[in-house]
Amino acid sequence: MNTTTIPTSEFEERIRKFQANIKKEGLDACLVHATESDMAFVRYLSEYWPVFETAAVFVPAQGEAILLVGPESDLYASQRSFFKNIEKLIEYRESAEPDAPGMSFITYKDLLEKYDLQHIRKLGIVGWAITPLPVYTSLKEQLPNVEIVKADMTLWPLRFVKSENELACMRKAYQISELAVEAILNEIKPGMTELQVIGIAQREIYKHGGEYEGHSLYCFCGESTNNAISRPGHNTIVENEVIQLNIGARVSGYSSSVGLPFSIGPLPERKRRLIEFGLEAHKKPIGMIAAGKPAGQVVNDYENWVKEQGFGQYLLYGPCHAIGMMEVERPWMESTSEYLLQENMTFQIDTFFYDKDFGLRWENGVIVKDGGVEMMSSKFMKYIEL
Amino acid sequence: MNTTTIPTSEFEERIRKFQANIKKEGLDACLVHATESDMAFVRYLSEYWPVFETAAVFVPAQGEAILLVGPESDLYASQRSFFKNIEKLIEYRESAEPDAPGMSFITYKDLLEKYDLQHIRKLGIVGWAITPLPVYTSLKEQLPNVEIVKADMTLWPLRFVKSENELACMRKAYQISELAVEAILNEIKPGMTELQVIGIAQREIYKHGGEYEGHSLYCFCGESTNNAISRPGHNTIVENEVIQLNIGARVSGYSSSVGLPFSIGPLPERKRRLIEFGLEAHKKPIGMIAAGKPAGQVVNDYENWVKEQGFGQYLLYGPCHAIGMMEVERPWMESTSEYLLQENMTFQIDTFFYDKDFGLRWENGVIVKDGGVEMMSSKFMKYIEL
Repeated sequence: MNTTTIPTSEFEERIRKFQANIKKEGLDACLVHATESDMAFVRYLSEYWPVFETAAVFVPAQGEAILLVGPESDLYASQRSFFKNIEKLIEYRESAEPDAPGMSFITYKDLLEKYDLQHIRKLGIVGWAITPLPVYTSLKEQLPNVEIVKADMTLWPLRFVKSENELACMRKAYQISELAVEAILNEIKPGMTELQVIGIAQREIYKHGGEYEGHSLYCFCGESTNNAISRPGHNTIVENEVIQLNIGARVSGYSSSVGLPFSIGPLPERKRRLIEFGLEAHKKPIGMIAAGKPAGQVVNDYENWVKEQGFGQYLLYGPCHAIGMMEVERPWMESTSEYLLQENMTFQIDTFFYDKDFGLRWENGVIVKDGGVEMMSSKFMKYIEL
Repeated sequence: MNTTTIPTSEFEERIRKFQANIKKEGLDACLVHATESDMAFVRYLSEYWPVFETAAVFVPAQGEAILLVGPESDLYASQRSFFKNIEKLIEYRESAEPDAPGMSFITYKDLLEKYDLQHIRKLGIVGWAITPLPVYTSLKEQLPNVEIVKADMTLWPLRFVKSENELACMRKAYQISELAVEAILNEIKPGMTELQVIGIAQREIYKHGGEYEGHSLYCFCGESTNNAISRPGHNTIVENEVIQLNIGARVSGYSSSVGLPFSIGPLPERKRRLIEFGLEAHKKPIGMIAAGKPAGQVVNDYENWVKEQGFGQYLLYGPCHAIGMMEVERPWMESTSEYLLQENMTFQIDTFFYDKDFGLRWENGVIVKDGGVEMMSSKFMKYIEL
């Protein structure tokens, strides 16, 4: 299978750019974190994706970066990542905290000594919200003269504009998502559970070259479609009800999602009308996005239009969020966003409307271009009644 | 579909027992954490399983517990959990940290006031290793007179001995795992990728009533079988090589895993011998485990036996670990473990041997009983050459 990947040279370039940001921020180094389900920052720098354990990348303002893993991951890390410097720290063990008797670990203090980094006085933490607490307490204890600051924004902006390799991964992920949606529409039957429908999508994701789900997959039928976020369950699919799919494949770390409401048999007029209005609304930001446009303007124009049409009461939030290694990532597109859209930023057009007893969400991905967008998915932008 | 679940009364009993432990430890309350991939403690108390965001349960030594969720999860939480008290805190938002303009959140300080808990002076944190750093810093800032201590062990012991409802979930999870392995053995072909094999397992897990994978699923072919932990990739399945499966379904939060090495076509004698020795070794702890036995004795007797047989050099770690809501959980079974095995503890017999160019892992689950074990899986305890 011809897999779509990021070459090592691009990882190395990311590290160099990140080091420039570290210097610019007046930091001496950054410590970048990942968990099993939230691996983006570490994978962005190293290709490493932890399993069971957590992980970090230690990036000094200059010199070589070091991959930090837990007790059982050093062999896996050395096979998966191009990093030459890999160290084991007890702080990155599983949350059930095995004692790992007989194993030896390096401390943060000894790490700085080993890599000749004792000059470090100001250390940025990236992935602040997912940094294991034992990491934080060990840093405080072992490095009492080092100031520790949150530094997520030294790395985030590098991920905003995607490279050609990143775009290739994302396009492929969206293609696979569309194949998975297609298989569901061909096979879904009343009486299946929501989770059994997810099984169809999982099968297709792996069959066509995906490496994992791109986010927690959704299939809801009936009332629970009014949840902005939720999990599928053992509820059965029934006729004449809204069925909501949000299906996303992951390719080389890059996420995607295709979302549509549909039904088996006709829907009541009221539900069908909101679904069709939702689709019309979904197309609005697609027509508004272009390189050079202020992000907040898209949100305000969209929200004003929805209100003018008399549907403001069904609106929960804005029409887009960035997508990349996480299905939801920065930059946020809010009414207050002042930044300008740039070519090759990637956004998920995420159109959610909800009423008291149902909801719907149209989702497709776009790449920002001069004068408009390139759609990464568009096959299911119509209301389907099976 | 007849789903296997935990009744609300059992969740309430868990909270009462946990509160007794909180008092016994001299704590005034505990704050218990979960992430998307590490949800066990919160789900154990509330059935709630976060998605995208994180979550916590605030349990005072007496009185009602409170479920704490992020900006977008309150509706989902109210539909999923039986908890009446649900509060939104910004600390449990996604790691990309949306500003959530226009939403309102409660602080920890106001939470204590609202629920008449201002007497709290000593607060235990459960799930220390997965507690979001913003939670820790907010607690320190908002509650300067409250002592914060790690308190994982106030809750862990409740999870050691499984109830009949828990055992029913686990038995079903193992049954589904065996069905998934069977489907793989029927369908696997040279030229498939490791990930495509995982797709077969995913399809079967959801088809037969699983809610998710019970752990990150493994399929490795060739050299990468020597990893203790790893992730499957786009490597293709080839003949005359060791193929390693570790497949686990999740049912109502409870994990399982069935592991076996096998091959398509014959293996070199050296590899086949280690696989067959591994299977013999796998049966040893199964024959040793019984209620009342010191856990450490199983480990020592096993390791001594392996060494006597001349295979000590291929041994990485002990023969068992507990399994339940996490595929790997406490109590650890180490050579130094002094506790006695108790009826209805559940262990994964996890037999891993590795050489420089390959490895193998036999895995099956057992329930500790008087005089022996009940096997939760045993269908694939033979060397299969397809």
